[in-house]
Amino acid sequence: MYSFTSPFEQPAGSPIRELFKYLGEPGMISFAGGYPAGDLFDVDGLQAASARAYAAPARCLQYGPTDGLAELKHELIALTARRGARCTPADMLVTTGSQQGLDLLLRVMVAPGDVVLTEQPAYPATLQALRLQQARIVTVPVDRDGLDVDRLAAWLEANAANAATAASRPKLLYTVPTFANPTGATLTRERRVALLRLAVRYGILIVEDDPYGDLRFDGDAVPSLLALADDVDGARDWVVHFSSLSKIVAPGLRVGWTIGPAEIVRRCVIAKQTVDLCSAPWTQAIAAEYLAAGALERHLPRIADAYRRKGGAMCDALREQLGGAIAFHRPEGGMFVWARVPAVSSKRLLEHAIAQKVVFVPGGAFFADDVDESSLRLSFAAPNVEQIGEGVARLARAYDAATSAPR
Amino acid sequence: MYSFTSPFEQPAGSPIRELFKYLGEPGMISFAGGYPAGDLFDVDGLQAASARAYAAPARCLQYGPTDGLAELKHELIALTARRGARCTPADMLVTTGSQQGLDLLLRVMVAPGDVVLTEQPAYPATLQALRLQQARIVTVPVDRDGLDVDRLAAWLEANAANAATAASRPKLLYTVPTFANPTGATLTRERRVALLRLAVRYGILIVEDDPYGDLRFDGDAVPSLLALADDVDGARDWVVHFSSLSKIVAPGLRVGWTIGPAEIVRRCVIAKQTVDLCSAPWTQAIAAEYLAAGALERHLPRIADAYRRKGGAMCDALREQLGGAIAFHRPEGGMFVWARVPAVSSKRLLEHAIAQKVVFVPGGAFFADDVDESSLRLSFAAPNVEQIGEGVARLARAYDAATSAPR
Repeated sequence: MYSFTSPFEQPAGSPIRELFKYLGEPGMISFAGGYPAGDLFDVDGLQAASARAYAAPARCLQYGPTDGLAELKHELIALTARRGARCTPADMLVTTGSQQGLDLLLRVMVAPGDVVLTEQPAYPATLQALRLQQARIVTVPVDRDGLDVDRLAAWLEANAANAATAASRPKLLYTVPTFANPTGATLTRERRVALLRLAVRYGILIVEDDPYGDLRFDGDAVPSLLALADDVDGARDWVVHFSSLSKIVAPGLRVGWTIGPAEIVRRCVIAKQTVDLCSAPWTQAIAAEYLAAGALERHLPRIADAYRRKGGAMCDALREQLGGAIAFHRPEGGMFVWARVPAVSSKRLLEHAIAQKVVFVPGGAFFADDVDESSLRLSFAAPNVEQIGEGVARLARAYDAATSAPR
Repeated sequence: MYSFTSPFEQPAGSPIRELFKYLGEPGMISFAGGYPAGDLFDVDGLQAASARAYAAPARCLQYGPTDGLAELKHELIALTARRGARCTPADMLVTTGSQQGLDLLLRVMVAPGDVVLTEQPAYPATLQALRLQQARIVTVPVDRDGLDVDRLAAWLEANAANAATAASRPKLLYTVPTFANPTGATLTRERRVALLRLAVRYGILIVEDDPYGDLRFDGDAVPSLLALADDVDGARDWVVHFSSLSKIVAPGLRVGWTIGPAEIVRRCVIAKQTVDLCSAPWTQAIAAEYLAAGALERHLPRIADAYRRKGGAMCDALREQLGGAIAFHRPEGGMFVWARVPAVSSKRLLEHAIAQKVVFVPGGAFFADDVDESSLRLSFAAPNVEQIGEGVARLARAYDAATSAPR
């Protein structure tokens, strides 16, 4: 009866959402979610920040500037500086989570049919956003050191040399270079510099999505692409950086931000005026007070310590319970273990896992093409250490059942 | 250097935004803003609601459902019932202000080139959203009784009879039927029923934007199109209703909602998953607590009383100070007086008004075509009664200067 525009005619289709129905079952242990651990929220610190924010109620209650409250931008610029990158207010836009930053960027930069490069495997909501914008997705593989920049360089060279495709230069490349979702991999410094050089050479925007960078619990920090862009001539013009308080403070604030060239940010602000006028000033004011009090620096080690314990417990249990049947790398931060079970498809494994009351996300959700059917993503953020041990034991039982049962 | 998608290449272009630079000037009186009065916010009631919301911190701090917190939807459905209309959870989506509801609806329903009908004059952000979606805008005039439904009927009939245009049925019609922005006009009950019949007959979605309906301070209430849709066979399938707490509680909550056919709402939810995952659960929880406590019903009369005094003061002063030079109707609610000054263009009047330290919005901002150059919108919501009197006195001096000065 109604006539809808085509990209929205598909059903929700997210395999992660499909799993939601199992999460409420009594006794279910979930390694599926991308949610941060609820018991690690700084409840008292945020309550205090909320009280300070409301000391100036008009700031919380009235419309705010479309690009974000000035005091929040001030704090986020200081946070960016502590992370080693510079930023001015004109380079920054506050959004409803970094998810909205991506949506706004795609709306101002990507027309239907435009080529967009993305790492593979990749964050499914990004793939969905690209599909809704009707982009042509070209994937670049990821290994344990992140995006395969040599493969990217070869593709770009071949594409530019081909008269038929040279005109349709890719608009942008999307990557989570630090503790990637889903692979947990971190792009090496050398690859980062090489990637920035490619961006300048071919005029391609590098979209660095960095929600997990502060969640390092092992190894040495690697500067963000945004920070490194100052070391590569002209690269700052070709980097858009997303970050968010969702994984390090609380998703319920819905505070994310975009840092990019002022001309791009300005257009995203124009789009945001029309999209929702502004993100909630009240939670922006709370975030500003929280950051101004230094609460993030005090609280972050608690989260990193907990994730170190949880991530360690998961890797140890996987090794112990599944031995050679599973392949994975120990992550140095973030929320995820990316694994392969070569002897079985992860979809089939999931069916048996659900029967054993444990869930994870089969890898297929993270591929735009060439699905690795044996891959799976395990999140250690939300369950506690005991649940992680028990969940992996169930996973091992599910694995036995999946590999021994007749197909 | 960058290649942007076309609709976002224009500058912000909102004449209302252009006025922002004057609002900070010392002594400036503004009749320009669409902001609600900051001194009428229920600061204590919202503080109490905030404390109750945070009694369950996880609800505030974690991700929430994309369609909105269940307890908020429960309260909004009860509010909808008090306003005389029925609604189920599947018919409702909570958004970041009703502005986001419009954006999502246009994204799922309107493809570039689609015909969209809108009242004229109309809310400029709607015109901007339609332009960004690359809709073909067809305007229907408004008189003191709201949308001219006879004119609409004639257009629809002619359009359907023309073989060349019949295939491109308009997707939707946008209207603010109660205390419209900018005209302040309220569509009569008879016209509402006629409009709903046209919607069913021609298969056109009626988009009812209703942020001001509760702000009645004079005259008799008229049911919303959503409420009346139950009286017209099949009409409920063709009504999408937007409402918001921005004008009756506080814009800083960024709580708006969409009520519509479940199939349309479902697709808007899919779009919202990709756009921003969810609106801020923290402010949603505060809104739910505020509504559950009955605070809105207690507070609304204070806002309506204040707007009655302010609107009355503005109309009295305009009549007194400008006499026959200005034509307008006394509004029965809302925030706006829509006026005409036949002897001068309102843009020219504004130049003199700025010199006199008073601002308003020239009517041109509200027209997609056939601009009425003598029209202007005056908001009485934010200034106090004394400022309104002084502002109109300044406007009268500006009028004298504009009509006597050499052009």
